[in-house]
Amino acid sequence: MSDATQQYWAFIQEQKAYEEAIALMHWDLRTKAPKAGMEQRAEAIGYLSQQAHRLSTSDRLKELIDELKPSAKDEILVKSLAESEKEYDRNKKIPEAEHKAYIMLQSKAESVWGEAREKGDFSLLQPYLEELVAYKKKFASYWNPNQHAYDVLLDLYEPGITMEKLDDVFPALRKSLTHLLEQIKQSSVKPDVGVLKTHFSKEQQKAFTVAVLKKMGYDFDAGRLDDTIHPFEITLNPKDVRITTRYDEEDFRMAVFGTIHEGGHALYEQNIGEKLAATPLAGGTSMGIHESQSLFWENFVARSEAFWKGHFEEFKTYAPASLQAIDFTDFYQAVNEVKASYIRIEADELTYALHIMIRYELEKALFKDEITVAELPKIWNQKMEEYLGIVPESDAQGVLQDIHWSGGDFGYFPSYALGYMYAAQFNKKMRESLDTDSLIQAGDFAPIKQWLTDQIHQYGKAKKPLELLQDVTGEGLNADHLVTYLTEKYSKIYQL
Amino acid sequence: MSDATQQYWAFIQEQKAYEEAIALMHWDLRTKAPKAGMEQRAEAIGYLSQQAHRLSTSDRLKELIDELKPSAKDEILVKSLAESEKEYDRNKKIPEAEHKAYIMLQSKAESVWGEAREKGDFSLLQPYLEELVAYKKKFASYWNPNQHAYDVLLDLYEPGITMEKLDDVFPALRKSLTHLLEQIKQSSVKPDVGVLKTHFSKEQQKAFTVAVLKKMGYDFDAGRLDDTIHPFEITLNPKDVRITTRYDEEDFRMAVFGTIHEGGHALYEQNIGEKLAATPLAGGTSMGIHESQSLFWENFVARSEAFWKGHFEEFKTYAPASLQAIDFTDFYQAVNEVKASYIRIEADELTYALHIMIRYELEKALFKDEITVAELPKIWNQKMEEYLGIVPESDAQGVLQDIHWSGGDFGYFPSYALGYMYAAQFNKKMRESLDTDSLIQAGDFAPIKQWLTDQIHQYGKAKKPLELLQDVTGEGLNADHLVTYLTEKYSKIYQL
Repeated sequence: MSDATQQYWAFIQEQKAYEEAIALMHWDLRTKAPKAGMEQRAEAIGYLSQQAHRLSTSDRLKELIDELKPSAKDEILVKSLAESEKEYDRNKKIPEAEHKAYIMLQSKAESVWGEAREKGDFSLLQPYLEELVAYKKKFASYWNPNQHAYDVLLDLYEPGITMEKLDDVFPALRKSLTHLLEQIKQSSVKPDVGVLKTHFSKEQQKAFTVAVLKKMGYDFDAGRLDDTIHPFEITLNPKDVRITTRYDEEDFRMAVFGTIHEGGHALYEQNIGEKLAATPLAGGTSMGIHESQSLFWENFVARSEAFWKGHFEEFKTYAPASLQAIDFTDFYQAVNEVKASYIRIEADELTYALHIMIRYELEKALFKDEITVAELPKIWNQKMEEYLGIVPESDAQGVLQDIHWSGGDFGYFPSYALGYMYAAQFNKKMRESLDTDSLIQAGDFAPIKQWLTDQIHQYGKAKKPLELLQDVTGEGLNADHLVTYLTEKYSKIYQL
Repeated sequence: MSDATQQYWAFIQEQKAYEEAIALMHWDLRTKAPKAGMEQRAEAIGYLSQQAHRLSTSDRLKELIDELKPSAKDEILVKSLAESEKEYDRNKKIPEAEHKAYIMLQSKAESVWGEAREKGDFSLLQPYLEELVAYKKKFASYWNPNQHAYDVLLDLYEPGITMEKLDDVFPALRKSLTHLLEQIKQSSVKPDVGVLKTHFSKEQQKAFTVAVLKKMGYDFDAGRLDDTIHPFEITLNPKDVRITTRYDEEDFRMAVFGTIHEGGHALYEQNIGEKLAATPLAGGTSMGIHESQSLFWENFVARSEAFWKGHFEEFKTYAPASLQAIDFTDFYQAVNEVKASYIRIEADELTYALHIMIRYELEKALFKDEITVAELPKIWNQKMEEYLGIVPESDAQGVLQDIHWSGGDFGYFPSYALGYMYAAQFNKKMRESLDTDSLIQAGDFAPIKQWLTDQIHQYGKAKKPLELLQDVTGEGLNADHLVTYLTEKYSKIYQL
């Protein structure tokens, strides 16, 4: 190994040391840290993040990349250098003063968002959003002046995805979903979620979800499960992949499906190839592919009829007396209720993508200057009525519900819908070689996990999302599989 | 505030960010981290420690100190600069190559120590100890060529303490302790610790100790209690002071007295004056003073007759049935059993200081070249026989029992005995203004905590240990109070 190559890998280890420290500090803040110490903790995180940022924009890194790039042959080195260079460019192209001003604006906007949502008053947030949009347009032009600003932003979260690609699939998907939703509204089947809402102790919920996590192959020797308020998965290092969950003792669905969802993210991170561990390629390749893994386990496995056929009796051994007498069909229908609702994060798997499309259409229009920030609430409500048939009573339940825009995260939302589509495409493909339903019903998840590892997980960031999709399924982005899956599943449940 | 002053305080914040990250990574390793991730974690800690070391020896720091020192007036600034300069000198005076070689030797020696202890074979460790002693002599000469090497090392852990000061008090203390031990051996009172050894669930032990911690004034909003193997207190920031403990379900003494001990350390850290929080003066002033606080709560409070008179009934509400029938006197005698034993960390409060004196005498003789490393096991055993009347069967139970020397920590042990003496001196002084026994019996610890805060805690490192001792008690190091306390307590228990 050349001197420069050794120096490059040593440099990556330095970055990873900061990343691990910062990730642990965040994990601790959200699971264990006593409240009085949080203010000083935020200072410490801020300082270390600044150091990590300096490292990623250092001349030392640039010199190593320039020296190694022309002659690099080894695939992992080539792709790692590309990853480092992308991060270097992304950070370096923003003038330091603008970066600083943006960070301050972001922090202020997030705090104003909290107030605006509480008061249901969009006008408080409006000037901040206007500034954030302006910054993001400017940053996008620094990053890539030859591409439309919104495409540049999409690429940050989902490399390779553009408005053109999304507009190829979203309209037809939207039409199918709204049609299906309309049919469901008219169905005489009315699932009763009330039967699920009964006291179910945290300890028993946890015992059941831990049993499922173990069956999924989540490695507790290389991770752990803790309580939190807003559940998340976080990777400290390739052998320390932690998940968190929240328990509602009056509604077990939050913890059961939430934990399995985070478990899906964690399986991805725990099964990235060993030889990528010490490189910038260790980690999920994109937001959307990551979400495909969590959604696969949450919906395609844990909300499936096969899963409950095989696990209902086991589930009952943990469940309280009041859940013992429920009829299987009533139970299965209730955990799959479809209902138009205001809040994205509470949406079912059918309406969820409609929530995303509203956000996508608004973001795109904003960045194309077809609408103004001031018009967001009005158009939000119009689209809610058009796609979901309901109109929020206040902006708190509408345009103000998500923190993303106040954090400057424009272009992020589409990843969620992409995750659903990818998951359906992977699910379809998996069924060509595995008898998925039988395996799920038998709780024999090992072959499923192995398939996901072989096809997806092991590659980390070494394959870009659309390249991975093509390699696994033989096709590009395709919403048909999601439509087919949802149509079949819900036609049966709602007797359409 | 001058530019340089602002820069200095900003620099201190940078140091604190690294310290907090490293402390959290250690805490996590010892309480929560999954085992598979530990190897990468050690790498990350190593790198960040190196960065922190670079910061503490940076030219930037030296320039700021040199600029500010001549004209600094504010007491906190003056003392903070002195603290920073001391750390700068300590780190800077060691040539980088020697520092690196020493770190590697230390790490190797600690691992060899584990093997040597397991096999009871001192010869494995001997060459490493010889090298470590040589390094420490050399380092001491770099730090201060005008003082004896061992005095330089003592000062690292207990500023102001010298062999001369220790030799003023240790021999008389040793004589009194061995005399008392001799009398106890001949007493007809034979406490039966067997009565304490009964199954006592971890949950109930924890409930009792948490109740005591709360009475002591440990602030759970600025700290937390977790399980670990080797209990410790760790300060992440002034408002995040964590303690850990270990439960033995067959012997509650480990967790009950251990938790109160760590709670004593934590009270010190939680009650350092607010205005020292963002300075290098935040933290206990020395190992010995710190230990005086933990020992005060563990022994002078929690092993006292007053404590159990006031808390025995409360304790029983947590204790299992088998402990309900115990006679108070039997119980009190059992938790205060005095018995010569081989292992320092298992020693009672009377024999503990004798274990320390053996180590001190050996270290002093080594650094004075009066003995060789090879002679340590033999002389260790001779002194054990002389002071405690027992001889370890193997070096594993003797000279190999502690990790300290393999870590190069020579001069550290005396702090433990100093902690006992300081605690007795503070205890004596406190009784001049507070009716300590009544307060302890009533569980009314607030005035005791307040006294410790006013007299000791609030000053952090702003007072050196002997300065603090003088200010609080009006005298210097004095072993008489410890002798008096032990004589009175154990004469009563053992009817001497």
